Amino acid sequence: MADDLLTIGDTTFASRLIMGTGGAPSLDVLEQALRVSGTELTTVAMRRVNTATQGSVLEVLARNGIRVLPNTAGCYTAGEAVLTARLAREALGTDWVKLEVIADERTLLPDPIELLDAAETLVDDGFTVLPYTNDDPVLARKLEDVGCAAIMPLGSPIGSGLGIRNPHNFQLIVESANVPVVLDAGAGTASDVALAMELGCSAVMLASAVTRAQDPVLMADAMRRAVEAGRLAHRAGRIPRRYYAEASSPTAGLADTRERPAF
Amino acid sequence: MADDLLTIGDTTFASRLIMGTGGAPSLDVLEQALRVSGTELTTVAMRRVNTATQGSVLEVLARNGIRVLPNTAGCYTAGEAVLTARLAREALGTDWVKLEVIADERTLLPDPIELLDAAETLVDDGFTVLPYTNDDPVLARKLEDVGCAAIMPLGSPIGSGLGIRNPHNFQLIVESANVPVVLDAGAGTASDVALAMELGCSAVMLASAVTRAQDPVLMADAMRRAVEAGRLAHRAGRIPRRYYAEASSPTAGLADTRERPAF
Amino acid sequence: MADDLLTIGDTTFASRLIMGTGGAPSLDVLEQALRVSGTELTTVAMRRVNTATQGSVLEVLARNGIRVLPNTAGCYTAGEAVLTARLAREALGTDWVKLEVIADERTLLPDPIELLDAAETLVDDGFTVLPYTNDDPVLARKLEDVGCAAIMPLGSPIGSGLGIRNPHNFQLIVESANVPVVLDAGAGTASDVALAMELGCSAVMLASAVTRAQDPVLMADAMRRAVEAGRLAHRAGRIPRRYYAEASSPTAGLADTRERPAF
Amino acid sequence: MADDLLTIGDTTFASRLIMGTGGAPSLDVLEQALRVSGTELTTVAMRRVNTATQGSVLEVLARNGIRVLPNTAGCYTAGEAVLTARLAREALGTDWVKLEVIADERTLLPDPIELLDAAETLVDDGFTVLPYTNDDPVLARKLEDVGCAAIMPLGSPIGSGLGIRNPHNFQLIVESANVPVVLDAGAGTASDVALAMELGCSAVMLASAVTRAQDPVLMADAMRRAVEAGRLAHRAGRIPRRYYAEASSPTAGLADTRERPAF
Repeated sequence: MADDLLTIGDTTFASRLIMGTGGAPSLDVLEQALRVSGTELTTVAMRRVNTATQGSVLEVLARNGIRVLPNTAGCYTAGEAVLTARLAREALGTDWVKLEVIADERTLLPDPIELLDAAETLVDDGFTVLPYTNDDPVLARKLEDVGCAAIMPLGSPIGSGLGIRNPHNFQLIVESANVPVVLDAGAGTASDVALAMELGCSAVMLASAVTRAQDPVLMADAMRRAVEAGRLAHRAGRIPRRYYAEASSPTAGLADTRERPAF
Repeated sequence: MADDLLTIGDTTFASRLIMGTGGAPSLDVLEQALRVSGTELTTVAMRRVNTATQGSVLEVLARNGIRVLPNTAGCYTAGEAVLTARLAREALGTDWVKLEVIADERTLLPDPIELLDAAETLVDDGFTVLPYTNDDPVLARKLEDVGCAAIMPLGSPIGSGLGIRNPHNFQLIVESANVPVVLDAGAGTASDVALAMELGCSAVMLASAVTRAQDPVLMADAMRRAVEAGRLAHRAGRIPRRYYAEASSPTAGLADTRERPAF
Repeated sequence: MADDLLTIGDTTFASRLIMGTGGAPSLDVLEQALRVSGTELTTVAMRRVNTATQGSVLEVLARNGIRVLPNTAGCYTAGEAVLTARLAREALGTDWVKLEVIADERTLLPDPIELLDAAETLVDDGFTVLPYTNDDPVLARKLEDVGCAAIMPLGSPIGSGLGIRNPHNFQLIVESANVPVVLDAGAGTASDVALAMELGCSAVMLASAVTRAQDPVLMADAMRRAVEAGRLAHRAGRIPRRYYAEASSPTAGLADTRERPAF
Repeated sequence: MADDLLTIGDTTFASRLIMGTGGAPSLDVLEQALRVSGTELTTVAMRRVNTATQGSVLEVLARNGIRVLPNTAGCYTAGEAVLTARLAREALGTDWVKLEVIADERTLLPDPIELLDAAETLVDDGFTVLPYTNDDPVLARKLEDVGCAAIMPLGSPIGSGLGIRNPHNFQLIVESANVPVVLDAGAGTASDVALAMELGCSAVMLASAVTRAQDPVLMADAMRRAVEAGRLAHRAGRIPRRYYAEASSPTAGLADTRERPAF
């Protein structure tokens, strides 16, 4: 895959798997999972309760050569998110930010108005902004228009494991976008991740699906391969879907491959 | 994956991808695709029109150390299929057979009655029988009961690329089976294959999805990784699906994870 | 709907809803539900434990002018089913039978081999046979070929409420059949029933979805209208599915309605 | 259904089907379809090209006692939409408006920022505002918070006939909303409409699915019944979905109804 790199902003990555750090049973398991995943970019929540643990996570990333991507999880307004991003920049020395502005605790869905507002402010302030957004193609375009470096739509609510609820919206987003589209939130298993890549996503962001799996390290390995499989399948060009069968061998004669009518 | 081998009958395989040979644009592309796929078992149609080409395919398999699995594609009755299997045994020196008894040319769906009849005869005759069947859990059990070495249900019609139309039936088949269950027919892309493995299939059989892809070699690579990804995800134990969100980081508070009622 | 009647064998029905009687909280609720459903044909299990209750059910059908359709629920072999059908013919004076030959208690799926055997015997014996079958298009055709008066494929397991798991198979069955196709088993709610009719089913058979609903009488009303709605939609000819939007009013300009490529 | 009325703002309706007028092959067919649909509320585009035809549509509504709901189709900014709503109020003497602010011609998706802005302005100006919105639960809540009288999320793009692409979002919207939720856009056939009502929508809005059907009048009849069927099913309380079968008759013994684990 060395000839098929991911570029976000001014940086190029060989891995298309962005990881999160929340939910792991231990720091040791987290470290193993991150290594196995092959990730080169991992988000860390800036507003986490336990800064002691947080420090340890940063050390894990540092000693494995994984770039840290601070996120604004836990922010409910543009103001909070902007402030958190600025504190992260000072503390971590990076102007990259995964921008999250959450509407409420129950759904953890992004607030589209506050998100766009914060994105615009942060871009103007020189940040490389990767916004966690809903799957609305219109909001995705607006986020790109204000200068976001990538678009990170959710497949389904954070931690739900429901996969991509609306693949059609992902297709619409991907075909309009001129920046990388990254599935963020909702993936539960490897096939969800492969599908995201087949739909044209440039990368996938995962946390709970790996850290809360029964065996996080094994699942990290699964996800690494699923990203690669989906990306390769996207590039390879799949066969069309047919209503009727088509024999792979000539013995079975010509199958009727015309399209079925409605219903 | 060296600790997670596939056993069919008396033979053990490291690869869980069974390939077919029909549909490739050239023998050279087929050979590259087979190599990249990592397959150790590949089916060849015994009733193919062009025995000259057929010979070449067998040579490809031989020089790549891939075991040949003769199939009875093009047979419409138990009698034809049994005869074809016996001719294959003589010609190729293997008592393994991928048993296909097709009901009609349009759907290429298996004939359940003729299939069961042929399977019983061939098992009695000492064959290791791998039947291509529909996704009916009852027929799957009957095929196992008469001694088949694996069950190969279709996800959707041959060459349709419609994936697994009825995952529920695959779950029912897998949980009852004491022999390997192999997705046979219908896969169109990597996520279909990953899903099959996540549902508990022991392996996947592919022909058109690879040979008729725009880039068969790239797709073979995708499929190899998708089988591995799905298998690892199955073993890793995925997170449960939740109706509501669950934060991966503790900042976002406790999400309500109770199940939603009906609808 | 008076111009759009259902014909099974030599009999014509205005209603396209076939009801079952199992699972109702009381005989009174059952009677109300049957009335509201508008059904003209209702199945009764011949091997029910309590023949006292059974008698009452038959009285309910009689006084509401609903034709009784004896079924062979609880039979596991062709022999049992044939015997049960013959006893029903003597007891109830009808040569119609809803033929069920179940493979096991856990799935309640039909046994394809025993079913076809019993169907052939009963047709030869002069019965009008309506077989409960799986959704295999090949078995459906075989059942028609031996002389069944209708084909009754399951959408999903009895009482599961999972709807039609494989609409593609229903389309294949409907387009080949020359006798009515009736969804039997799996419907959970009104939209499942409407979908069945849109796919071209001639009627729908329901028991648990109505009798075990929280309000069986209200659900019977829902189901009656859903059958009508789905049938009318099928006849009306739905709009095609489009990848992109199409304005209903001319102000919005011309939308691009070309098909999207793969994925 | 006389005991189950729909209330929007200060007005009560017996019908839960809101119709549009675009796309009909003729004014006569439109009139028949509207009558058969039983609608009591029908939208008319204020910016239609041909005001002569438009006048005729208004006459059709008037003579059939159908309330007119002006819409702002064709508006791309809050300013345009507010102006159009005010012109409609003057011209038609109604302060109700179906608010549409479209982002682009290709997707016809709503612009969330402009929509919310226009909604707030119009509510302040005394309008009863029914906004056409995407299926984002957060935006839905914001629209309710600024005083909209109903929320009208799209199932899929206008005229696409793709049905409800994300039922999960509809459930989230319905369970939070204190005003009626109305499916607006995307329905293609009766089962889509029944599903919307089962998910808890209070009404359904349709145009192309009826006016562009092969037989618009028959489809209007289908849709009227589908709304009723879905609403009744919602009220009746469907059976739960079960992984395994459950016999409706006691003969078949106790089925195992425990939930399946993941995958």
